[in-house]
Amino acid sequence: MEFIAAYTSYVERELKKISIPDLPLTLYDPIRYFLQIGGKRMRPVLTLLGAELFGLEKERAIHAALAVEIFHNFTLIHDDIMDAAPLRRGYETVHIKWNSNTAILSGDMLMIKAYQLLEQQEGNLRLLLEAFNKTSVEICEGQQMDMDYQERTAVSISDYIEMIRLKTSVLLGCALELAAIIANASEDDRKHIYNFGVYVGLAFQIQDDILDLYADPDKFGKQTGGDVIANKKTILYLLARENASDEQLKKLNALSIEQNGQLKVHETRQLFDEIGVKNKSVDMMNHYFFLAQQEMNKVSVPDKNKLLLNQISEYLLKRDV
Amino acid sequence: MEFIAAYTSYVERELKKISIPDLPLTLYDPIRYFLQIGGKRMRPVLTLLGAELFGLEKERAIHAALAVEIFHNFTLIHDDIMDAAPLRRGYETVHIKWNSNTAILSGDMLMIKAYQLLEQQEGNLRLLLEAFNKTSVEICEGQQMDMDYQERTAVSISDYIEMIRLKTSVLLGCALELAAIIANASEDDRKHIYNFGVYVGLAFQIQDDILDLYADPDKFGKQTGGDVIANKKTILYLLARENASDEQLKKLNALSIEQNGQLKVHETRQLFDEIGVKNKSVDMMNHYFFLAQQEMNKVSVPDKNKLLLNQISEYLLKRDV
Repeated sequence: MEFIAAYTSYVERELKKISIPDLPLTLYDPIRYFLQIGGKRMRPVLTLLGAELFGLEKERAIHAALAVEIFHNFTLIHDDIMDAAPLRRGYETVHIKWNSNTAILSGDMLMIKAYQLLEQQEGNLRLLLEAFNKTSVEICEGQQMDMDYQERTAVSISDYIEMIRLKTSVLLGCALELAAIIANASEDDRKHIYNFGVYVGLAFQIQDDILDLYADPDKFGKQTGGDVIANKKTILYLLARENASDEQLKKLNALSIEQNGQLKVHETRQLFDEIGVKNKSVDMMNHYFFLAQQEMNKVSVPDKNKLLLNQISEYLLKRDV
Repeated sequence: MEFIAAYTSYVERELKKISIPDLPLTLYDPIRYFLQIGGKRMRPVLTLLGAELFGLEKERAIHAALAVEIFHNFTLIHDDIMDAAPLRRGYETVHIKWNSNTAILSGDMLMIKAYQLLEQQEGNLRLLLEAFNKTSVEICEGQQMDMDYQERTAVSISDYIEMIRLKTSVLLGCALELAAIIANASEDDRKHIYNFGVYVGLAFQIQDDILDLYADPDKFGKQTGGDVIANKKTILYLLARENASDEQLKKLNALSIEQNGQLKVHETRQLFDEIGVKNKSVDMMNHYFFLAQQEMNKVSVPDKNKLLLNQISEYLLKRDV
């Protein structure tokens, strides 16, 4: 995303300036490690672009931007424990490199650091805190729903959408809403830009599920079909279940216990093609993208202010499906 | 503590009013459970008494009081995981009754709820948030130091005091400081009442260590010597090490591997008496209590306003040593 490289590297520079003490080493070393293994920094960039959308210099929203990014990193550290994930962005997760206790406490500390950044943000602090807290509550609820759904057989598509809305999309909405609050935007504009972020987030998450099975492995950077092998309840799987004939359903169930990974992925893809899963999921993604655009159209600022945010959302959603 | 029963039951009533949604059940059930198993509610009562100290009605500080109590409960849930504690206040801990993942996430949610309560508190929100965040950071540092010290042989008395200051005392200071902020007290008064809380907290924590070995078991409600059996590095143990002769030190080390619990407690008590540990630790407790009183003397409000807080601190520190 070259056109936003200036924003990303500004975020990186400011992240490095956050004061992380030396001691206790066992608490702060994992935090330093985790912040440095990177990530796309998509959320703080959204806050900065949101500030510019409403006519502010991006520097005016930097503390809120960092708060969102730090909060996101807190959720990753704790989610990785709960999901027993060994790797994050190709690096060992905190609970593996150290241990669970260290991951719990350094995650807690990161959450507090997020609030410490928010405390430094100019603007209506009560509104900022309200928006941030509401989203934080929802993210925890989404994580719990995600864990609950792994144990459940019957998960409807609307359950799934609600889960990813809470677990991942609301934070994109919040990243933008904070900028609107800082800029003293109208309540309507706050709502529209929040919704824009949530819809982009939903489209993006659906695309993630699609890419896992249908991406060009050379461009995607990892082997496709990981979700299929892990029997994950992705939107593809749920759409397949909902649209399968009895016979196709039997086949789908049989495939879940197939031990040969390559064969499993190949046959699942074939079955999904029969059922038309790819088109249905792409339609769904485009539907949310359309809703996002509609929300952006309603934001009452000059069109030229909307260019970058529209560009970034288009870019995000054209990753080689 | 009958003279503060009205405060405690007010806190209980208001705690019950905090909206805890039904769903996801797996997230909110543990929170309901944990809030209902009780505790002394000492911290929120301090906030309410702090408000009255500075001439405000206690109702004006209720959200800050609840924020402190909820934050405290978050730390307990996570600490219980880290310490692998099976019981809390005689009830199963969350990670035992459910599992670690549930305890991690419901703890996270409680921390966010604390910030949600703070967001509703009238007063200078930026100052409230700054004080609250600073204390939250310190509590995590204290918990990490506590875990680090379990692994280390050489822990000095000043290390230990710093650890308990961070892990437990600063929250008492913060509970009072928030009240001072709400009441727009002067910066000096804020500092004095904060220090009062911290010193009372230190005295209280030292007393806890003393009671574990020297309390009357009938009044104490549990068998004495639990810390000795678990080889915990309490202030008694550290004072013993620092004041022991070579021979006494050898005996102390030998006792750490004694398998007979009753004998171990009996002989340790005898050894501590030889070294004069009880007097030294009571002196230390009284020293911090004296410092607390000095801070209270400096708070620039009429003496009659100080009665209840002085009474409560005296009460706390006269638990049958």
